[in-house]
Amino acid sequence: MPGNTFGELFRVTTAGVSHGPGYLCIVDGCPPGLPVSVEDLLPDLRRRRPGQSKLVSQRDEPDVPEIWSGVFDGVTDGTSIGILFRNEDQRSADYAEIKEKYRPGHADFTFDAKYGLHDYRGGGRSSARETLCRVAAASIAKKLLAKQGVRIVGYVKQVGNVVADIADPAQVTLEQVEANAVRCPDSTAAQKMIALIEQVRKEGDSIGGISELVAVGVPSGWGEPVFDKLKADLAKGLLSLPAVTAFEYGAGFRVATARGSENNDAFIPVLPSPGSVGEGTGVRARRIGTETNRHGGMLGGISSGEPIVCRVAIKPTSSLPKPQRTVTRAGAPTEIVTKGRHDPCLLPRFVVMGEAMMALVLVDHWLKWKAQCGP
Amino acid sequence: MPGNTFGELFRVTTAGVSHGPGYLCIVDGCPPGLPVSVEDLLPDLRRRRPGQSKLVSQRDEPDVPEIWSGVFDGVTDGTSIGILFRNEDQRSADYAEIKEKYRPGHADFTFDAKYGLHDYRGGGRSSARETLCRVAAASIAKKLLAKQGVRIVGYVKQVGNVVADIADPAQVTLEQVEANAVRCPDSTAAQKMIALIEQVRKEGDSIGGISELVAVGVPSGWGEPVFDKLKADLAKGLLSLPAVTAFEYGAGFRVATARGSENNDAFIPVLPSPGSVGEGTGVRARRIGTETNRHGGMLGGISSGEPIVCRVAIKPTSSLPKPQRTVTRAGAPTEIVTKGRHDPCLLPRFVVMGEAMMALVLVDHWLKWKAQCGP
Amino acid sequence: MPGNTFGELFRVTTAGVSHGPGYLCIVDGCPPGLPVSVEDLLPDLRRRRPGQSKLVSQRDEPDVPEIWSGVFDGVTDGTSIGILFRNEDQRSADYAEIKEKYRPGHADFTFDAKYGLHDYRGGGRSSARETLCRVAAASIAKKLLAKQGVRIVGYVKQVGNVVADIADPAQVTLEQVEANAVRCPDSTAAQKMIALIEQVRKEGDSIGGISELVAVGVPSGWGEPVFDKLKADLAKGLLSLPAVTAFEYGAGFRVATARGSENNDAFIPVLPSPGSVGEGTGVRARRIGTETNRHGGMLGGISSGEPIVCRVAIKPTSSLPKPQRTVTRAGAPTEIVTKGRHDPCLLPRFVVMGEAMMALVLVDHWLKWKAQCGP
Amino acid sequence: MPGNTFGELFRVTTAGVSHGPGYLCIVDGCPPGLPVSVEDLLPDLRRRRPGQSKLVSQRDEPDVPEIWSGVFDGVTDGTSIGILFRNEDQRSADYAEIKEKYRPGHADFTFDAKYGLHDYRGGGRSSARETLCRVAAASIAKKLLAKQGVRIVGYVKQVGNVVADIADPAQVTLEQVEANAVRCPDSTAAQKMIALIEQVRKEGDSIGGISELVAVGVPSGWGEPVFDKLKADLAKGLLSLPAVTAFEYGAGFRVATARGSENNDAFIPVLPSPGSVGEGTGVRARRIGTETNRHGGMLGGISSGEPIVCRVAIKPTSSLPKPQRTVTRAGAPTEIVTKGRHDPCLLPRFVVMGEAMMALVLVDHWLKWKAQCGP
Repeated sequence: MPGNTFGELFRVTTAGVSHGPGYLCIVDGCPPGLPVSVEDLLPDLRRRRPGQSKLVSQRDEPDVPEIWSGVFDGVTDGTSIGILFRNEDQRSADYAEIKEKYRPGHADFTFDAKYGLHDYRGGGRSSARETLCRVAAASIAKKLLAKQGVRIVGYVKQVGNVVADIADPAQVTLEQVEANAVRCPDSTAAQKMIALIEQVRKEGDSIGGISELVAVGVPSGWGEPVFDKLKADLAKGLLSLPAVTAFEYGAGFRVATARGSENNDAFIPVLPSPGSVGEGTGVRARRIGTETNRHGGMLGGISSGEPIVCRVAIKPTSSLPKPQRTVTRAGAPTEIVTKGRHDPCLLPRFVVMGEAMMALVLVDHWLKWKAQCGP
Repeated sequence: MPGNTFGELFRVTTAGVSHGPGYLCIVDGCPPGLPVSVEDLLPDLRRRRPGQSKLVSQRDEPDVPEIWSGVFDGVTDGTSIGILFRNEDQRSADYAEIKEKYRPGHADFTFDAKYGLHDYRGGGRSSARETLCRVAAASIAKKLLAKQGVRIVGYVKQVGNVVADIADPAQVTLEQVEANAVRCPDSTAAQKMIALIEQVRKEGDSIGGISELVAVGVPSGWGEPVFDKLKADLAKGLLSLPAVTAFEYGAGFRVATARGSENNDAFIPVLPSPGSVGEGTGVRARRIGTETNRHGGMLGGISSGEPIVCRVAIKPTSSLPKPQRTVTRAGAPTEIVTKGRHDPCLLPRFVVMGEAMMALVLVDHWLKWKAQCGP
Repeated sequence: MPGNTFGELFRVTTAGVSHGPGYLCIVDGCPPGLPVSVEDLLPDLRRRRPGQSKLVSQRDEPDVPEIWSGVFDGVTDGTSIGILFRNEDQRSADYAEIKEKYRPGHADFTFDAKYGLHDYRGGGRSSARETLCRVAAASIAKKLLAKQGVRIVGYVKQVGNVVADIADPAQVTLEQVEANAVRCPDSTAAQKMIALIEQVRKEGDSIGGISELVAVGVPSGWGEPVFDKLKADLAKGLLSLPAVTAFEYGAGFRVATARGSENNDAFIPVLPSPGSVGEGTGVRARRIGTETNRHGGMLGGISSGEPIVCRVAIKPTSSLPKPQRTVTRAGAPTEIVTKGRHDPCLLPRFVVMGEAMMALVLVDHWLKWKAQCGP
Repeated sequence: MPGNTFGELFRVTTAGVSHGPGYLCIVDGCPPGLPVSVEDLLPDLRRRRPGQSKLVSQRDEPDVPEIWSGVFDGVTDGTSIGILFRNEDQRSADYAEIKEKYRPGHADFTFDAKYGLHDYRGGGRSSARETLCRVAAASIAKKLLAKQGVRIVGYVKQVGNVVADIADPAQVTLEQVEANAVRCPDSTAAQKMIALIEQVRKEGDSIGGISELVAVGVPSGWGEPVFDKLKADLAKGLLSLPAVTAFEYGAGFRVATARGSENNDAFIPVLPSPGSVGEGTGVRARRIGTETNRHGGMLGGISSGEPIVCRVAIKPTSSLPKPQRTVTRAGAPTEIVTKGRHDPCLLPRFVVMGEAMMALVLVDHWLKWKAQCGP
């Protein structure tokens, strides 16, 4: 409850700071018998890593996890999974100035106001480096979900004013996403995004954007009515990521200008594709779908069986090589230049973090469904 | 955890359906010694009530709560507060048709898929009538927050294409909001909204919109880093409301097109106004603010002391007097006309529900702050 | 978390006081499709009722619950079950004196110290009348457990120095327990207990005792390692009942004087009885048992498949017609005579409360098992 | 919730096994500003260590923790505290036999039944070595409690038939406890206990006992009514320790033979000692105590201000050099000799584990008190 744990049945607890010895991650509640190795965790950790291209931070961290427990003879054994990351490329000197000045857009001031002190080295606990624990835990979650027929994919939908044209979010593949450095499946838009980010970087500035996240294959029936609606937990999970300022699913903010007669999705009979997995959990679920998906795969907070589609906005990196106005810890006006190695645009690396939170939310709701409604 | 409880330290648990005997609401964790009476709960319950104008549902419910426990000699006694609502104006007959047909946009199908059955009378547990428990509990939360100097106000920002012009969200008063039937403090826009809703109603249709919610006086330091960020819990609380499809705070989705140099808010020294209450919890908090508020009062998931400002989108009412295409429970194509007494636009009644969730989130984080960081 | 909720997946939340309008009970997380009616709740509520014999309190309450939600067309529908009890026979006048004096052995003083006030009418929230919510919720839990092949039975093992002779706890039936007013399956001991309680009552005093609680049919594999061991949750559940001062399972305190070589239970092959239900969840579980049951059906905090056997001590009723020394709320020495209608011995009515907590703990662990280890 | 987390506001989450690389421990919710260093954690870790005398296991582990986060510039910074232990003296070869045979009294069989597999190396997750995380976390809890005037002390009350004579549990000091190898403050009894354990060890057997745990200085008002009673959480915390089979507080099981008139503790006025700390949280609390302490410092589940006194029984070590009858994983009868380096009596090392759980429970309830009832 004090904020470093996510999930109730598939529960992730983390500790660590960007400029200490490293990070600890404990994953509790994973069903036993799932094959898990360090190799399973590496692909998404690599996608999250800084230093992959000029578009992102140049900090160089191998980010190879150590699994200390919870996996025995190559499979999960039902007990808590202990994962460790060691920090290597820290360069604390880069951050000396921020000891006495609050960085605009960062959590230095609010941590200080809350706790009466803060670890100023690279943001301490508020550093986005903490998300590597989430990504590692989510690799396990994704494996569990894949066995249920659920596939999660995220991508960059917009950077600045460059908007990708995606015909059908449910058809986007990981390969398309990974085909370019900005992780946008529309290759034309991708080139424009890359050019824009490059330009912004040269100007000593940063730029925001929008990421779209999709879960295909979620059967109808996941999500709890009333307070723990699936849409509510997705919103919480995604807003818990650094720099996320907005969330919408399905038609999202566009519902504001819509009429009910045009916003409702008509129910239609559907024929399950032969050999399909996880496409509905009850008799009725297998036979009914919707003609359109303005409801983004959730009705009444419960999955409908249609693809779950949501979007989040990510603000431009707060750390800037440009001078910014701020105050000292003592409250005196001053300027600050944040020298570290920062991403000119967070979007390319965000994609995997967004997928991670979507996976953690879905796996938790799957286990809740199993507990109450499973066989 | 199974979804009918909200909050951790100020915890609201509810039961009840729209066409049963009534609703039960248990509020746990309220500090003792707070004066609470039925009269304290009535004002917001009246704002939530249907039948207030032609803009909303014509169902007529007195919605007078009974407080069964937790209040002794007029003040909270620290034990769980039991609140009861009796349903009166039910007219089950209105809902006979939906027993065999899934209403588009509603939770009938997903409840059925999840539980293998559903209470089809007026939506059963998925009816928005459940929010009267939230509003009652939030009246208590608002009283607690008021003692901390926190004031919450919500209003209608947009209906269809009519957008209100609000100079400063932090200056909007309850009186301005309640001055018209649509609860929009911009009286010019309000008239246009009313005209639009009236027109939509005559067309047998419904219309969506956007509500803006503001908390003024939240001191810096509320909110937990990492997973339980204040922005994340606000997003969850608001998305847990029926019909909400999107959430943003501060600059929200507009960050997508912003540069870091224009999105960051500069820190500045501030002078506390004499005699002010709750404007900062630590020494530094009282002396530092930001020049602008694109961060919507939260940095790193922790309140900054600036007004908390967020917006949510509410979809057009799914129930329509117009025929809609759907399927029967058996999966056969059919049409449905939802005859009940429904709101042509949910926005005017939504405002108090949005305020309620904001209050429940804030009071919970205040208690968490007290536990870990309080004196 | 603030103390009025029990369980995590099968979650019971209560409110109410003994001298207010009544009690509210919300049961969340019950699997859908279970037939539940008021009639299902009555048998155990009747066993809990005061006024059944001279051995217990003469307060006369019908204790007939109203089910307001969560049951539709006779079966649970997966949503929160709202249950209501109205208080009838209150006689507040009986309690006038305790407004100004602390009753020894009661919670008046500690509530006052904690909250700065307390509802002095009959103990307010600390009244054992609150357990009727637990018993009602547990009737539902028992039905779920019965479908898993689990049967729970409690009985009076000891009153004062009278100790029952029970050959095999796992063989005791509800009929044997209900055969006499003291709920002791050893009819010879039962008569002595009744005589002792009668004598104590005439002396204006009260007497304590021990209750034994048994769960037969729990398959191996329920209970979480480390902190949420089954034995730990049973201890918590039972110690959460008023007047319980001690808990032991299996050999309990007798292990203090035992050698390892005599305390360990040898594993042996077992043949499942034909047609048996729920007697093991894995392949191995079905074929292995223990020769003796000093481990009380739990090893490493996880059920072994052997009967779960535990015992709790219940103190003599604190309310006495005899004068007792105490202080006033102002701290001045005085005497008090607690006039109400109290049980001279809590044991006969305790049995069903103990069974209730055992059922609530087991059903919660069953659901946890389903979530993580179920099919 | 899946069992590897303890506490709600002061929350300890652990992972690790006895024969893997080591243990991870995350402590969340600690108030900021508390001086904490590795040195603060060592004293109790040394008391817990094996190899201290012939009375306990000869495994030799330095058990020096690494603090990876949550402490900055020597004080807690409010974020999650990450603690690491590396295993060193493992000798996996010792445990080869148990791969195919279930050890009587151990969790091998139940883990296998639950998860379908288990880490057989030294008990895997069920090894009591896991308690070093609890002890480390509790060292922090004890520092917080000490600032509130709370002192916790545990000691060995009984080994086999040797019972210590303790005049006043509240007067026992750490020095008295640590004065002998068996940790019994009655030095005469201690010599007999040592002799008995030595004899049992030579016989290739083990022996059980009772530990008494005391918290002095807990003010009145800690503990939640109804389900989260302080007595209930203490019972859970202590029963969550390996080998604990029974719990009682105050008069405990002796209430079974007591009359109400002799069991109730009379309230009396008390004068606070000058300069005392933490002796009551409200006005009344400071002036009222009880003449005797049969209630063990808790009434209605809430602390009364009197010393909290409880006792737990610890079974004789299950691992024995003597041959024991058991079955193979395939269910065939066989014998087993558990060769490892095991304690002939768990009691001397248990004391610090018992203190640890008492500290974790109390600190959690202190924070809950702060949240709801604090200033």
